[in-house]
Amino acid sequence: MDKREIRELLEQVARGETGVDEALLQLKMQPIAEIGDYAKVDLHRGLRQGVPEIIYGAGKTPEQILGIARTMRENGQETVLITRMSAEAAELVGAELPLRYDPRSKTGLVGPLPEPTGKGLVVVATGGTSDLPVAEEAAVTAEALGNRVTRLYDVGVSGIHRLLSHMEELMSARVIVAAAGMEGALPSVIGGLVDCPVIAVPTSVGYGASLGGVAALLSMLNSCASGVAVVNIDNGFGAGFMASVINHLD
Amino acid sequence: MDKREIRELLEQVARGETGVDEALLQLKMQPIAEIGDYAKVDLHRGLRQGVPEIIYGAGKTPEQILGIARTMRENGQETVLITRMSAEAAELVGAELPLRYDPRSKTGLVGPLPEPTGKGLVVVATGGTSDLPVAEEAAVTAEALGNRVTRLYDVGVSGIHRLLSHMEELMSARVIVAAAGMEGALPSVIGGLVDCPVIAVPTSVGYGASLGGVAALLSMLNSCASGVAVVNIDNGFGAGFMASVINHLD
Amino acid sequence: MDKREIRELLEQVARGETGVDEALLQLKMQPIAEIGDYAKVDLHRGLRQGVPEIIYGAGKTPEQILGIARTMRENGQETVLITRMSAEAAELVGAELPLRYDPRSKTGLVGPLPEPTGKGLVVVATGGTSDLPVAEEAAVTAEALGNRVTRLYDVGVSGIHRLLSHMEELMSARVIVAAAGMEGALPSVIGGLVDCPVIAVPTSVGYGASLGGVAALLSMLNSCASGVAVVNIDNGFGAGFMASVINHLD
Amino acid sequence: MDKREIRELLEQVARGETGVDEALLQLKMQPIAEIGDYAKVDLHRGLRQGVPEIIYGAGKTPEQILGIARTMRENGQETVLITRMSAEAAELVGAELPLRYDPRSKTGLVGPLPEPTGKGLVVVATGGTSDLPVAEEAAVTAEALGNRVTRLYDVGVSGIHRLLSHMEELMSARVIVAAAGMEGALPSVIGGLVDCPVIAVPTSVGYGASLGGVAALLSMLNSCASGVAVVNIDNGFGAGFMASVINHLD
Amino acid sequence: MDKREIRELLEQVARGETGVDEALLQLKMQPIAEIGDYAKVDLHRGLRQGVPEIIYGAGKTPEQILGIARTMRENGQETVLITRMSAEAAELVGAELPLRYDPRSKTGLVGPLPEPTGKGLVVVATGGTSDLPVAEEAAVTAEALGNRVTRLYDVGVSGIHRLLSHMEELMSARVIVAAAGMEGALPSVIGGLVDCPVIAVPTSVGYGASLGGVAALLSMLNSCASGVAVVNIDNGFGAGFMASVINHLD
Amino acid sequence: MDKREIRELLEQVARGETGVDEALLQLKMQPIAEIGDYAKVDLHRGLRQGVPEIIYGAGKTPEQILGIARTMRENGQETVLITRMSAEAAELVGAELPLRYDPRSKTGLVGPLPEPTGKGLVVVATGGTSDLPVAEEAAVTAEALGNRVTRLYDVGVSGIHRLLSHMEELMSARVIVAAAGMEGALPSVIGGLVDCPVIAVPTSVGYGASLGGVAALLSMLNSCASGVAVVNIDNGFGAGFMASVINHLD
Amino acid sequence: MDKREIRELLEQVARGETGVDEALLQLKMQPIAEIGDYAKVDLHRGLRQGVPEIIYGAGKTPEQILGIARTMRENGQETVLITRMSAEAAELVGAELPLRYDPRSKTGLVGPLPEPTGKGLVVVATGGTSDLPVAEEAAVTAEALGNRVTRLYDVGVSGIHRLLSHMEELMSARVIVAAAGMEGALPSVIGGLVDCPVIAVPTSVGYGASLGGVAALLSMLNSCASGVAVVNIDNGFGAGFMASVINHLD
Amino acid sequence: MDKREIRELLEQVARGETGVDEALLQLKMQPIAEIGDYAKVDLHRGLRQGVPEIIYGAGKTPEQILGIARTMRENGQETVLITRMSAEAAELVGAELPLRYDPRSKTGLVGPLPEPTGKGLVVVATGGTSDLPVAEEAAVTAEALGNRVTRLYDVGVSGIHRLLSHMEELMSARVIVAAAGMEGALPSVIGGLVDCPVIAVPTSVGYGASLGGVAALLSMLNSCASGVAVVNIDNGFGAGFMASVINHLD
Repeated sequence: MDKREIRELLEQVARGETGVDEALLQLKMQPIAEIGDYAKVDLHRGLRQGVPEIIYGAGKTPEQILGIARTMRENGQETVLITRMSAEAAELVGAELPLRYDPRSKTGLVGPLPEPTGKGLVVVATGGTSDLPVAEEAAVTAEALGNRVTRLYDVGVSGIHRLLSHMEELMSARVIVAAAGMEGALPSVIGGLVDCPVIAVPTSVGYGASLGGVAALLSMLNSCASGVAVVNIDNGFGAGFMASVINHLD
Repeated sequence: MDKREIRELLEQVARGETGVDEALLQLKMQPIAEIGDYAKVDLHRGLRQGVPEIIYGAGKTPEQILGIARTMRENGQETVLITRMSAEAAELVGAELPLRYDPRSKTGLVGPLPEPTGKGLVVVATGGTSDLPVAEEAAVTAEALGNRVTRLYDVGVSGIHRLLSHMEELMSARVIVAAAGMEGALPSVIGGLVDCPVIAVPTSVGYGASLGGVAALLSMLNSCASGVAVVNIDNGFGAGFMASVINHLD
Repeated sequence: MDKREIRELLEQVARGETGVDEALLQLKMQPIAEIGDYAKVDLHRGLRQGVPEIIYGAGKTPEQILGIARTMRENGQETVLITRMSAEAAELVGAELPLRYDPRSKTGLVGPLPEPTGKGLVVVATGGTSDLPVAEEAAVTAEALGNRVTRLYDVGVSGIHRLLSHMEELMSARVIVAAAGMEGALPSVIGGLVDCPVIAVPTSVGYGASLGGVAALLSMLNSCASGVAVVNIDNGFGAGFMASVINHLD
Repeated sequence: MDKREIRELLEQVARGETGVDEALLQLKMQPIAEIGDYAKVDLHRGLRQGVPEIIYGAGKTPEQILGIARTMRENGQETVLITRMSAEAAELVGAELPLRYDPRSKTGLVGPLPEPTGKGLVVVATGGTSDLPVAEEAAVTAEALGNRVTRLYDVGVSGIHRLLSHMEELMSARVIVAAAGMEGALPSVIGGLVDCPVIAVPTSVGYGASLGGVAALLSMLNSCASGVAVVNIDNGFGAGFMASVINHLD
Repeated sequence: MDKREIRELLEQVARGETGVDEALLQLKMQPIAEIGDYAKVDLHRGLRQGVPEIIYGAGKTPEQILGIARTMRENGQETVLITRMSAEAAELVGAELPLRYDPRSKTGLVGPLPEPTGKGLVVVATGGTSDLPVAEEAAVTAEALGNRVTRLYDVGVSGIHRLLSHMEELMSARVIVAAAGMEGALPSVIGGLVDCPVIAVPTSVGYGASLGGVAALLSMLNSCASGVAVVNIDNGFGAGFMASVINHLD
Repeated sequence: MDKREIRELLEQVARGETGVDEALLQLKMQPIAEIGDYAKVDLHRGLRQGVPEIIYGAGKTPEQILGIARTMRENGQETVLITRMSAEAAELVGAELPLRYDPRSKTGLVGPLPEPTGKGLVVVATGGTSDLPVAEEAAVTAEALGNRVTRLYDVGVSGIHRLLSHMEELMSARVIVAAAGMEGALPSVIGGLVDCPVIAVPTSVGYGASLGGVAALLSMLNSCASGVAVVNIDNGFGAGFMASVINHLD
Repeated sequence: MDKREIRELLEQVARGETGVDEALLQLKMQPIAEIGDYAKVDLHRGLRQGVPEIIYGAGKTPEQILGIARTMRENGQETVLITRMSAEAAELVGAELPLRYDPRSKTGLVGPLPEPTGKGLVVVATGGTSDLPVAEEAAVTAEALGNRVTRLYDVGVSGIHRLLSHMEELMSARVIVAAAGMEGALPSVIGGLVDCPVIAVPTSVGYGASLGGVAALLSMLNSCASGVAVVNIDNGFGAGFMASVINHLD
Repeated sequence: MDKREIRELLEQVARGETGVDEALLQLKMQPIAEIGDYAKVDLHRGLRQGVPEIIYGAGKTPEQILGIARTMRENGQETVLITRMSAEAAELVGAELPLRYDPRSKTGLVGPLPEPTGKGLVVVATGGTSDLPVAEEAAVTAEALGNRVTRLYDVGVSGIHRLLSHMEELMSARVIVAAAGMEGALPSVIGGLVDCPVIAVPTSVGYGASLGGVAALLSMLNSCASGVAVVNIDNGFGAGFMASVINHLD
C-alpha cells in the first residue's frame, strides 16, 4: 500500500465512504503499514522507474519460478528479471510467458525491456572471455533496470593496448562495471584511467591459487586506484544493480 | 612526444620540411605521447573541481610529508588532504602550514576546506563508537573533496531502534558510507532501508574470530541487500573518495 | 564390573569367602565399573523425558538406518528422530515403520510426536527462504524433543520491517533459533531486540565470498549483541537440540 | 504509533477533525514510535533485574571509562561492570568510585555485587591454568549479573580423571561455561557428561597451529556432543552473559 | 666411488697409469657412487623384514595396479598391500591374483598376511563409526606390515565412559593410532591416559566448520597431551605405517 | 587509427588538404594508434620465432576450439598448441586438422612440431608419477615453443638417490621445470644442486592438508634455495612457457 | 576414595560393620576412586623412569616458576625441566636452586641430568641455524628425559650433500627429530633415507608466505615419505618428549 | 676445493710431490669431496663470476655478522653482500670493514661492487614508492651479483601512463623484476608488454585485506600474462638473485 493508496483510503474515511474499522483493518492487513514508509520506498521506486521485479532463481524449482513470475505479472508487473535461471526453468517459463533467456548469463527477462531511464551510460568491461557470464549478468541486469549498456569484453591487463584502444567508451561512461578473474587487476587499471565510479566484480575464473575467485577479490579490495568498490565473487547482478542505482541518481 | 611536439612535426610536414615517411616513423617511435594526456585528465579534474591533492601519510616521515605538502602549495594547490598522518607529522607540518589535524582519524587538512560542490548529502554511519576513526577518515575525506556530510555514529544493528530513529537522515542521503566492525551487518540493514548507493567499510574493530576485520568484510560482501559495494578493511579514505565521486555525478 | 557384580563381591567379602586384598585387587582391575553409571545418566534422561532416540543418517545406508530404528523400536523406544535422511532411506524405512518424512530438511520421525514438555515457546527464524532446510531441521528436532515451535521464515535484515512486524512472536519466545546464510546478521539484530537466549545457526547459503557458510559463521561469532551463541554451519539439529535443552530447564 | 493510536487518528479523519494530508504526514513521520518501545525493553530489563550496566573498556581511555561510570551512578545505577579494563583505568576509577578490580580478568565492579537472582548454579570450567583470565571474565560477569558461580579450573582433557573427580559439581550446574585453548576439547567431554546447556569459550592460549584460538574455536563448533554452543575467542564476557540469560529463565 | 676406489685411482695417478685429466674426469663423473648405497638400504629393509610392497592406488587405473602387482609377485614379493583401491580395481586384480579386499577402507592384500613381527600390540581407536574407513586403513596396513592389531571403535570423547571402559586394551598397547573427525579430541584424551606413543589421524568426517578435517587436524596438533604426533587428514595408511615402524623397534 | 591511416593523414597535411590543428585533433582523439604497435610486438615475436599460437581450451566448446584453430591455420599459422583440451575436442579437431593429442596432459598440437630454437636443454622433473599430467603440459608446451626437453619423472625427495642418480641431466639443463605436489620439496633440493634457473610448479596432487596444492605452493615459495621462482598450482603451461622464454634468451 | 579407603571399607564389610548395600552405595557415590589410579600411573612412571617433572614456563611469572620448582624439589623430585623460561625466571630460580639454563632454547634444568635410560640414540636435525632454538628445546628435553642425543644442525635440503655426509649418524638413530622452517622439506628427505621413526617439527622461521610456520607444517603433513609424524609449530618440547617415549619402548 | 685445485693436487701426485695417502686425506678433509661436484659448482661460480658471498642478516647479531664477514674476507672473498642488516650491524661492521650500507633496503655491501658480467640489463620496477625497500633489495642484490640495473619506481597500474612512458626501458631489459604490494597487478601488465622473463615479487605493502602481502602474492600467481614467475613476499633478494641467474645464462 503506497502513499497514494493510503491517501485514497484516508479520503474515503474523510468522506465516510469507508468506516474506521474497515480502514484500520486495511492498514493492518498490509504488514508494512506501521513500519511502512521503508517498504513504500521500494514500491515507489518500482512505480517511478518502471523497473522490473527480480527473482533470484538459484535454489528454486522451475515450477516455483514460474509461479512467482506468473503472480507478479497478474499483479500488474510488466517486466520480471530472473537471475541464475536454469535452462529447464527457462523452457518452462518460456512456454507460458514472453521470455527472453540468455543461456550464457543464465538470466531471463519476462516482458518488454524498459526504456532507459538512467542518466548516462553503463560500461561493462571484462578481463577475459571467460568472465562473460558474470559480465552479461551485470549487463542484462543493468538493461533490465533501465540503463543503456556498452560492453567491452576481453580487455584484460595483460594486453593493455586492447583496453587503451577503448578509452573513448571508458571516458563516456557514467559508471563502469569491471569484471575479472585470475589476478583481478582490471578495475585497478580502469580506476586509474577514469573519473567515474567503478564497480569491481571478481569472478571465479581461474584455478589453483585463484581459490575460486578469492585471489581476484583480494586484489580488487586492495586496488591502488581510488573510486573503486567491490561486490561478491561472480555477483554480476549486484554489480549491475549498484551501477543502475548510481546511474539513476539525479 | 607531447601535443606541442606533434604540432611542430605536423607543421614541418605541412611545410614540406619533413617527409611523410619520416613523420610516420617519428610518431611510431614515441608510442606514449598521447597517453600522457591521460595524466592531464587527472590534472584537469583537479583544476575543474577544486579538489585537494591527497597525501597518503603511512610510511612517510614527517619531513617527507611536509616536503610534499609544501611543494603542492607552492604549485598553487590551496588545499591538501593528508591521511594516516601521525601526531609527530602533524606537529611538524602545522608549524609551517595552516593545518587542521584530527587525531582520531589521523587526517590533516592543509588550507581552507573547499565549498561543497557535491550534488547531495553524504551520510556516514557507524555500528559502534570504536568504528569512529575509520568513519571520520571517510567523513573528513568527503568534506575535503567538497561534500556536505552528516554523521550517524553508534547506530549498530544490535540496537536497531537507534538506527531507525534516524530514518530521516538516511532517506535524505545521496550516498551513504556505512562503517562497521565485528559482525559488519550495518550496511546490509541500511541497504534494505534506502534507495541510494551504500559504500560499506569493514573495520578491524573486534578480536578473536573477527580476524582483523575479515569477518566484517566477508559479511559485507555477502550482503543480502542490493545497492551495496565494499572497500578494504579500515579504508575510510577509499569510502569517502568513492562517495564523493558518486555525489559529484551530474 | 557392574553393580550386580560388585554386590556379589561385597557379599563374598561379608561372608568371608573373599579376602579384603583379593577384593581390593578385583576392584582395582575394573576401574570403569562406576564410570559406567554415567552412561546410565543418559538412559535415565531418555526415560525421564520421553525424548526420542536420534539417528544421524549421514553416511549410513538405508538398510543400516532401518536396522537401527527397528532395534530401537523393539527395545521400547516409541519415537525415533532421523536427521540427514535421504529420500531412499525414507522410502525403505517408511515401508516398514510409521514414518513422517520431511524432504526439505531431510528429517524423519518414526512414531508419534511427543507431547510438548518444554516450558515455553521455541521460535525458529530465518533470514531467507533458502535457509529453510536448516531451519526446518532445527524446528523438527525441537518438536521431536517435546517443544512447541513457531516458525518465522524470510525475515532477513535487508527488509528489517518484516522482522519488526513479528516482534510479538519474538518477545513470546523462551529461546530463539536464528538461521541465516550470506552476511549472517539476523542473530545480531534479534539478539538486540529480545531478552531470551538466541542460538545462531550459520547456513551455507550463498556463493563466492560466503565460503560455504564461513562468512555467516564469523559474523555470528562476532555478534555485537549479547546473549547469542553459535553452532556449526548448517547444524540445524544442534541448534534445535540446544534450544530444547534450554527450554526444558526448570 | 500503535493500533489504538491509528484508530484514534482514523476517527479524527472520519470526524473531519484531522485533514487527510495531516493524517498522511503523521502516519509517515512516526514509523519509529513502536520501535522505540524496544529500547524500553532494555531499560525495563535493567530495572526489573537489578543487573548492572556494562562498560566495554577496550579502546576507551581511563577518563572516558570514569566519565561513563560516574554518569551511570548519578543516574541511579548502583552496580557497573567494566570489562577489558586496564590497570591504569582501574586506578583512576578506583580513586573516585567504590571499585573491586580483578587484574587477571581485567574486570572491575563498581558498587555492590547484586544478590544472586539466577535460578541455579553456573559452573565455569577451564582446560588449563592459562585459560584463567577468560574464565574469570566469564565468572565475574555471571556474578555481577546475579548468579552463583562455581569455578572448576585446570580440569583439561589430557588428565581426564581431574575432570571426572568433579562430576558432582558438573551435575549440579544449571548451565556450564567451558573455556579452553589449544585443542579445545573440554566442552565436548563435558557436553557428553551433563544434561544442561554448555557454553563453550575458545581461548587464544597456545601457539603455532593454535592460530590465535581458531583451532579451539573450530574444535568446539564441531563438538560431537549435543547441547553445546560457542561464543567468540576469549569472549569470557559473552559466555558469562549468555549463561546468566539462561540461568534467569523462569 | 668410495674411499677404496679413490685411493686406487690416486695410486694409478702416482704410478702414471692414469693421467691427471682422466682422473679428474672420473672424480667428477661419479659423484653418486656412495649415494647409490642408500637405495640399497630400502631393498635391505624389504628383504630383512619380509614386509609387503605397497601400491598407492589413487590415480592409477585398475590395469596399472594389476600390472604393478603382477610384476612384484613375479619378482618374488609374496605379499602386496594396495591402498585407495577402487572396487573395479579389486575385481580386476582379484580375478588373477589371490586378493583379500576390504571395501570400507578400500585396501586390498595380495598374498598371505605376514606373521606378526612387531614387538607389541597396536591399538586403533576411533571417535565415531564414520571414522571407520580411515581407521581400517590404518589397521589393515599395520596388520599387513606384521603387527597384531586391536580395534576400539566408536569410543569418542562425548561418551567418555565408553573410552574408559577400554582402559585395559589401551594400557596394553605398545603404540596407539587414534582417528577422529569433527572436534578431533580423542588423541588428547587417550594421550593423557597412556604411556605409549599415540599417532593421531584427523579424518574428514564432519561438515561446515570441520573444513574437510582441518578442524580435527588443528585440534590434534594443539593437543594438551604429550606423546602425540599427527599425520595428514584421512591418512590411515601413514598412521598404520608409523605405528608399525615404532612397534618394530627393538 | 593504424599506420596506413596515419600515413594518409600525414599525406593530407603534406598536401595541405588537412590543417595542422585538424590533424592534431585527429591524432589526439585516437591515442591508441601507436599503442597498437605493442600488439605487433606480439606478432613480430610469432613471425620471428616460428612459435605456435596457443589456445587455452578450458571453458571452450569443441566447436569453438576447432573454429579458432581453423582460423589460425587459414591465416598462415602452421602450428597451434591447445592446452586443457578434452578428449571430445580432440576427436572433433583431429577429424579435420592434423592433430597430435596427449590425453595425459590434455594438450593437442596441430601441425608440425617446430625445430628447436632454444639455446639449451629444458629439463622437466617431477616428484611422483601423479605429477605427470602437469609435467607433460610443461614439457609439451616447451617442445611446441621450440625447445629440446628431457624428462626426469618420479625423482621425488623421499628417495633422494633417484634424483641424485640423474645429476648429469640436471647439470646439463639451461633451465629446469620442477613439478611436485604433496610437500613440494623437489624444487628446493634441485635448486640447491644446480646453477640454472628453476621454475617450480606446485601440483594439486595429494589430499587432506595438501589443500588442493596450496601446501606445495607455500613450500615452494619458501624454498631455502635461491634461483627458484614459482607459478600457479597445476600451471604446467605457464612453467613451460617461462622455461621457453628463458631458454630463448640470447 | 583411594585405595586405603576402599580397603578400610572392605574390611568393615568383612567385619560385618558395614552392610553390603551400604558399601555398594559408598562405592557408587565415589566414582572417581579408581580413576585416581590413572594419575598414579603418571607417578609410577616418574618413579620408575627417574624422569623429571616438567614446568611449562610460558605465561608463568618467575615467582610462580620458582614456587612450583621448589615444591617439587621438596617432594623428592630431584630433576625439574622448565621450558619456555625467560632469562628473568632463570636468574630468580638459579639464585636458589641448582639450575643449568640454556638461553637459546629457553630451557632450564634444575638438578642433575638423569642417566640415559633410552634404548638407543635420538638424533635432532635442523634445516638451518635459525631452527636451533626449537631443535635445542627438543634436544634438551630428550636429554632431560634420559636419552642420548646427537645434534645435526644446518643440514637443510638446499645443500643436500651436507645432509648426506651425515648418513652414518642418521642410520644410527633409534628415533629422529627433524626441525625445519621455510619449506619444511627436511623430514621428507630424512624419512626417505632412514628406517626409524621421524618426528617432524615445523618452525616459525621464515617470513611472508611462511605464514608463521604454517607452510612448513603443511609441507610436513604432506610428506611423501612414510614413517613421519608431526607436532605443533615450534613445539620442540613435544618432539623431544615423543622421541623419548619412543626411545624408551622396550 | 675446486677443479683447479683438484687438478693441481693430482698433478702433485703424478709428479710424486704428494703421496697418495696425503692426497686422499686432502680430498676427504673437504667434506664435499665425494659428493662434491655440486659444491664445486658453487665455488666455480664464485671464481668465474667474481660474485660475492651472501650473508642473510635476519636473526643474526651484529657481532655474528661481523665475524662471518671478517672470516670471508680473510679467506679471500673480496665482496660480501649482507641482506636484512640492521643499522646497528651496519655501524659495527662499517667500523672495521669497507661497507656501503643502504638503510632503505637494509642491505650492506662489503668491498668493491663487481664489474657487470650479466649479458643484458636487469630492470627493477615497482608499483609504488612504498615498495622501494623490497625493490632496492632486489636491485642491490643484482648489482652485487654483477648486473647492470635500471630502476623504474612508482609505475603502478593505477596510473598506467607512467608505466607506458617507460616502454623503452622495459623493452631493453633482458629480465625484469616487478615488485608490487596491494593488488599486485604490475607484473601482469608488464608481462603483457614485454618478451623477456618477469620475476614478480609481492610486497607486504598495504593493510586490511592485503593480508600481509598474500593478496598481491595470489594476484601474481594468477597472472593472466605468460612469462611471469613469483618469489616469496618481500623476497627482494630472491628476485634479484633469480634475475642474475637468468641474466648470466650464456
